[in-house]
Amino acid sequence: MSEQFEQINPPARLLMGPGPINADPRVLRAMSAQLLGQYDPAMTGYMNETMALYRQVFKTENQWTLLIDGTSRAGIESVLVSLIEPGDKVLIPIYGRFGHLLNEIALRCGAEVHTIETEWGAVFTPEQIEEAIIKVRPKLLAIVQGDTSTTMLQPLEELGAICRRYDVLFYSDATASIGGNPFETDAWGLDAVSVGLQKCLGGPSGSAPVTLSARYVDEVRKRHHIEAGIRDRHHAEGKGSMIRSNYFDLPMILDYWGDERLNHHTEATSMLYCARECARILMQEGLEQSIARHRLQGDAMAQGLAAMNLELFGDQTNKMNNIVGVYIPDSVAGEAVRSVMLEDFGIEIGTSFGPLKGKIWRIGTMGYNARKDAVLVTLSALENVLRRMGHKCTAGAGVDAAMAVYSGQ
Amino acid sequence: MSEQFEQINPPARLLMGPGPINADPRVLRAMSAQLLGQYDPAMTGYMNETMALYRQVFKTENQWTLLIDGTSRAGIESVLVSLIEPGDKVLIPIYGRFGHLLNEIALRCGAEVHTIETEWGAVFTPEQIEEAIIKVRPKLLAIVQGDTSTTMLQPLEELGAICRRYDVLFYSDATASIGGNPFETDAWGLDAVSVGLQKCLGGPSGSAPVTLSARYVDEVRKRHHIEAGIRDRHHAEGKGSMIRSNYFDLPMILDYWGDERLNHHTEATSMLYCARECARILMQEGLEQSIARHRLQGDAMAQGLAAMNLELFGDQTNKMNNIVGVYIPDSVAGEAVRSVMLEDFGIEIGTSFGPLKGKIWRIGTMGYNARKDAVLVTLSALENVLRRMGHKCTAGAGVDAAMAVYSGQ
Repeated sequence: MSEQFEQINPPARLLMGPGPINADPRVLRAMSAQLLGQYDPAMTGYMNETMALYRQVFKTENQWTLLIDGTSRAGIESVLVSLIEPGDKVLIPIYGRFGHLLNEIALRCGAEVHTIETEWGAVFTPEQIEEAIIKVRPKLLAIVQGDTSTTMLQPLEELGAICRRYDVLFYSDATASIGGNPFETDAWGLDAVSVGLQKCLGGPSGSAPVTLSARYVDEVRKRHHIEAGIRDRHHAEGKGSMIRSNYFDLPMILDYWGDERLNHHTEATSMLYCARECARILMQEGLEQSIARHRLQGDAMAQGLAAMNLELFGDQTNKMNNIVGVYIPDSVAGEAVRSVMLEDFGIEIGTSFGPLKGKIWRIGTMGYNARKDAVLVTLSALENVLRRMGHKCTAGAGVDAAMAVYSGQ
Repeated sequence: MSEQFEQINPPARLLMGPGPINADPRVLRAMSAQLLGQYDPAMTGYMNETMALYRQVFKTENQWTLLIDGTSRAGIESVLVSLIEPGDKVLIPIYGRFGHLLNEIALRCGAEVHTIETEWGAVFTPEQIEEAIIKVRPKLLAIVQGDTSTTMLQPLEELGAICRRYDVLFYSDATASIGGNPFETDAWGLDAVSVGLQKCLGGPSGSAPVTLSARYVDEVRKRHHIEAGIRDRHHAEGKGSMIRSNYFDLPMILDYWGDERLNHHTEATSMLYCARECARILMQEGLEQSIARHRLQGDAMAQGLAAMNLELFGDQTNKMNNIVGVYIPDSVAGEAVRSVMLEDFGIEIGTSFGPLKGKIWRIGTMGYNARKDAVLVTLSALENVLRRMGHKCTAGAGVDAAMAVYSGQ
């Protein structure tokens, strides 16, 4: 007799960690729409609308703005493996875990990776990056905009012009920050950007929107090869070395999303509906409005935490709007607090990685959860848990401080 | 002013092609469940249940039975890139498009690939494969069980014993066939199997269940490396060469699904709910019952088509239960028939690839659509379209023949 399981019925949770967060119910409903055939005009129509919507999200005119089917790091690997030929020089400034991830992926693509590092909780100046570019002369600069491991937001505004000056391609992953912090693909001179849905876009993990400049696409198209099984007419083949991955081969993926509609994978239809709805909701609210909402809710959370006699982590002038790090006070056990918050209050706050493990909690206010009620409920629950566990703070101080931020608007 | 789009609202379609097909409504509803944090005990509980369910689907005791986040070919690439070190010999028997795909992916992994080919519409005998193994002495035999491009089902029963005899690892992709045709991971001696949800499992594309034998896992663990960003204690590192992909690095993915729960990607929660529900529904029906249903509905469809004066394609004794190829009669234009079926009747039937392009249609009866009403509606609509376009056949003959199959039960 085979084991039987009940239908899916997750417990009620308010997810105030570094992501995933609670999905917007409209996004979840969009995923329950029935499927379409891959080449149904209705399906290709939705693919084209999704491209148009993400051009707005990324603030770009790039034709090649589409989805990679997988989690956020699928977008990263796709951008890197399609470009990097073994031996290519890549410069990666690392200021947290996701810089290490870019390094890790680029190394596996065969790149000669050069890194510069700063302590967790800080970011780089444009001068530091320019200096490293001059020294390394890389083909590609790869850097994350927001690193949830440290809550930091790396300023990117000036890096595009620097990259152009030295003929360097410029790539950023903005999974943690997009929709909650300013991001300007074209104005900042980015050649490739990848993101995920599970942070400020209010969706589940599982689809990775990317946008690619003409300059980047020209480069990767030099490595264009078509699968034997579908090569049934004259296709131009690139002279570059074969891309090491079929799944992440962007020239082939572009042929699928473009007018050629050449079959590659079978598009993950429900996740496409989901990604489309995430962007549609964001554009209905307005990108500037969404960023302002994340700034307000993030400020309220940070001020509330500080008022509870907690010390905020890292350079507060370069923090993402949508997440705050806070030192775990010596008087309490960090994981015990997280457990009580989850088990008794149904609220998840985040732990941390690497050098910050056991030292800080990370508390997110992002996407659907960048809301006043979510902030106030979290602050009041955390205050109760901390006080019961022996941390000293004034009753109500956290909520009062958050309220002061709201009334200051 | 930014472009606005309506909420998702796909037209009603009955998808009777080679997949994707209409998802089971229960699967779509499961995806609308709210998200959980990655390490919430409820989430890891669902991950463990998903592993247990797919052990039943794959008929295996393999501990390492889990999901790769991506479309079907994500599962394929994951199995191949984690195992193959540059220069490793891989034997790939090709009998359709997806054999070419295995070849294509293995080549990009750096394998020395040896192929044998048979005409589209046929399969291999065990002797042909054994002979090639003796000649090539590969590390891995990779072959698809069902190739939707030709509708054929490759018998695998005897291949495991042959592989063991020559110390060859044995991998099959069963995306097209699982749930609708017999498949026995352990009894047939498979070391790795990958599938997708969008055929007989009745879900959308976007999650790739895999199962891995201890023998296979021992091999890939020789290449175990941990990401720098999370390497915060003593982890054993393999001596083998680094796997060329981070996203598809199975040793790291096993650490995420196993007791270590070491972070890799952020699991695609909604697609996990989806994959779990696909398997749960299948096991509620019973695997044998589901295969019998696919056999019955596939027979009814094939007999119905043959009775409409259409010629069936390929070796009918080695056909998948869930799809049938049928020659496009000279009297009609194949794509015009498909257009009228889709636009006027809302029914999708499949075109084909490569050497079969323009020669056959492919008609599926799989997953949620392996139903009597779907078969009869498709046959009666197709008869009408064909007769209006000038094809000669007896009115009602298709439905009569299908009915005869049902009453013969």
